[in-house]
Amino acid sequence: MSGSGEFELIEKLASHLDPAANGLGIGDDAAAWAPSPGALVVATTDMLVEGIHFRLDWTSPRDLGWKALAVNLSDLAAMGATPSRALVSVALLQGQAALVEEMYEGMSELARLTGTRVVGGDTVRTSGPLVVNVALIGEAEPNRLLRRDGAVPGDLLLLTGKVGASAAGLALLLDGDRERLPRSDAVSLLAAHHRPRPRLAAGRVIASLGLRCAIDVSDGVASEAWHLARASGVAIRLDTDVLPLAAEAVSMLGEAKARQLAISGGEDYQLLFTAPETRLAEVAAALGGEDSPTVVGRVVGLREGGDVELIPANPALDSGRPGYVAF
Amino acid sequence: MSGSGEFELIEKLASHLDPAANGLGIGDDAAAWAPSPGALVVATTDMLVEGIHFRLDWTSPRDLGWKALAVNLSDLAAMGATPSRALVSVALLQGQAALVEEMYEGMSELARLTGTRVVGGDTVRTSGPLVVNVALIGEAEPNRLLRRDGAVPGDLLLLTGKVGASAAGLALLLDGDRERLPRSDAVSLLAAHHRPRPRLAAGRVIASLGLRCAIDVSDGVASEAWHLARASGVAIRLDTDVLPLAAEAVSMLGEAKARQLAISGGEDYQLLFTAPETRLAEVAAALGGEDSPTVVGRVVGLREGGDVELIPANPALDSGRPGYVAF
Repeated sequence: MSGSGEFELIEKLASHLDPAANGLGIGDDAAAWAPSPGALVVATTDMLVEGIHFRLDWTSPRDLGWKALAVNLSDLAAMGATPSRALVSVALLQGQAALVEEMYEGMSELARLTGTRVVGGDTVRTSGPLVVNVALIGEAEPNRLLRRDGAVPGDLLLLTGKVGASAAGLALLLDGDRERLPRSDAVSLLAAHHRPRPRLAAGRVIASLGLRCAIDVSDGVASEAWHLARASGVAIRLDTDVLPLAAEAVSMLGEAKARQLAISGGEDYQLLFTAPETRLAEVAAALGGEDSPTVVGRVVGLREGGDVELIPANPALDSGRPGYVAF
Repeated sequence: MSGSGEFELIEKLASHLDPAANGLGIGDDAAAWAPSPGALVVATTDMLVEGIHFRLDWTSPRDLGWKALAVNLSDLAAMGATPSRALVSVALLQGQAALVEEMYEGMSELARLTGTRVVGGDTVRTSGPLVVNVALIGEAEPNRLLRRDGAVPGDLLLLTGKVGASAAGLALLLDGDRERLPRSDAVSLLAAHHRPRPRLAAGRVIASLGLRCAIDVSDGVASEAWHLARASGVAIRLDTDVLPLAAEAVSMLGEAKARQLAISGGEDYQLLFTAPETRLAEVAAALGGEDSPTVVGRVVGLREGGDVELIPANPALDSGRPGYVAF
C-alpha cells in the first residue's frame, strides 16, 4: 500500500474507511484481522476501466463505487462465501480526487449493507482512463463451498430472482426514451444496472443446503451456463422460454427483446445453480422473496468440454460459446 | 474474477498460475484456501501504472512482473507476515497479450522463490497505459505483528542490509554511462532497481523477537522514518552519515550522491525498524548475512504529529515531510 504523492488524498479517503477495529487498516503497510476459526479464506478481484466498463457521463461516481464493490461481492455470493475486507486501488488523473472521494462514498454504502470493511488500498496517478480495482476477501465454511465444476447429470438448473432489468437499464441509457416509461420503472431499471444487489444471502443458503455448484450471472444466463457446463464436463439444456423476466424490462423492451438480452448479455448478478430434482421443494422453501428460484434447465449428461443447448434453438447464440468476445 | 472477452488470454495465462492445490484457483469465481489455524489474515495491494511507475522501454515485462509482486511482498515483510496467495489484475491494450504473458512469467519466478501462489485475477482491456494491480494475502502470528505505530522513546532505529543500489540503478537507466562501470556493478545496480528482493525472512525474524515496529523502505529512508514518527507520535533522530551504502552505488555515484539518494528516494525495500538498546546484540545475532542490521538513529521522545531530525542537517530535506509530493 504505497504510491507516489498520494498522501493528501489518502488522508481524505481514510475518513471513508472503516476504523481498524479488530485489526490494522489504512496507514499501515497491510491490513490484518483474525478470521473465524476453521473458516476458509476466499478472495476475488475485479478491475473496472473507464471507457470499457463504465462511462463517467452515464455513471455517477457513487454508482461506480457501488458497482466496483458489487461485482466482487457477487463473486463471493457465487461461492457461498461471506465478505469480510476490501482493498481498493484507484488510478486517477490530476483533478479527479473529488470524484474518487464520491466513488468511495458509494462503495461505503454497499460495504455497510453487506458487512464489508474497506480497510485500505492504493491510490496512484495515471495519464489515462480512470481504473478501479477491488480485491475482496471473505470466508466460507469448509465443505460448503460452491464451485463451477459441481454440476452432475440429472441435476436441475435453477436461477434466483428475475433477469433482464440490468440490460434494459443499459438500453435505456443507450437510446431509451425515458419519458415514455413510468418514472418508477425507469428508476428501477437504472438501479438494476448501476446498483446491482449481489445475492449474498442466497449464496449462503444454497451452500448451507449442501449444494455444490453455482455461478453469478454477470454476462447473460447462456454464457454462465456455458461456464458451468465446461467446468463440470456436462451438457446443459437451458429452457430460455421460462427465464423469469423483470416486469419493468418487459414493459420497456417487449418480451422477446428483454428475453434475448437476459440470455445473452445481462449483468443481473443473480445466481445460476444446480440441485437434484428430489430437493426442489426444499430449495424453493429456503430461497424466498426476491431470491425465489425458477427451474430454467437441466444437466442432461456428461460431455467433455461442456455443451449448452438452448431450447428453443437460438441461431444468434447456438454457435460456439455465447458471451465470449475475442479480446 | 470476470471481464469482457478475456477468455482466450486467461486460458493462456492459467498455465502460469499455480494449480489449485489446497483450494480453488483460476476458473472459479474466487480463490479459496485454508489458512493456518489461529493465524491472522494480512492483506495488501499495490497498483503500477505505465508511464508513472514504470516505462516499457526501460523495464522488461519479466522485470515488471517481478516488481509488481515484490512491492506487495515487501509490505508483508514489513508486517512480519508470510505471503500465501496473490490475485493479479491487468488492464492492457489489444496486442499486449504476449507482453502480459511474459510479465506473468517474471511474477511466477518471484512467487516460487517466496512460496506465494498466484491463484487468479482479472484481465481487462484498456485504451490507455498498462495497469498492473497485485493484491497479496498472507498470514501472521497474532501478537507478532509489526506496525508503524510501535516506536517508543529510547528505542534504537535500525535498518537491514544496505541502501542506495536501487536509486543508483535508476540513475544508470536515466543518464548513466554503463561502459564506465565494471559490468558486474552495472548488473547488480540494475537488478537492485528492477528485481528488488523483499526482506521476508528478516521481517519474520524481527516479529518473532517480539519487536513491534517496522516499515519497508520504498521511498527513501527519511520518508519512511517520517511515517514511523508520525504513526507512533515520536521524534526520531536519523544519523544519515551512518546509513550503510551499497558499494556499487558508491562506485558509480560517489558517496555523497549515493547517500543523498538513499536518504530521499531509494526503493531499496530494506526494513527500517526499532528495538530497545538492551536487545541490540540479540537483534544483530538473529539478523545475519544480507539482512545484517545497522543502527541508524534513535527515538528521542514523544512528539504529537511526529518529527524527524536529520543528522547532519540536510537543508534539501529538513523542511516538511520528505518524500511526499503533491498529487
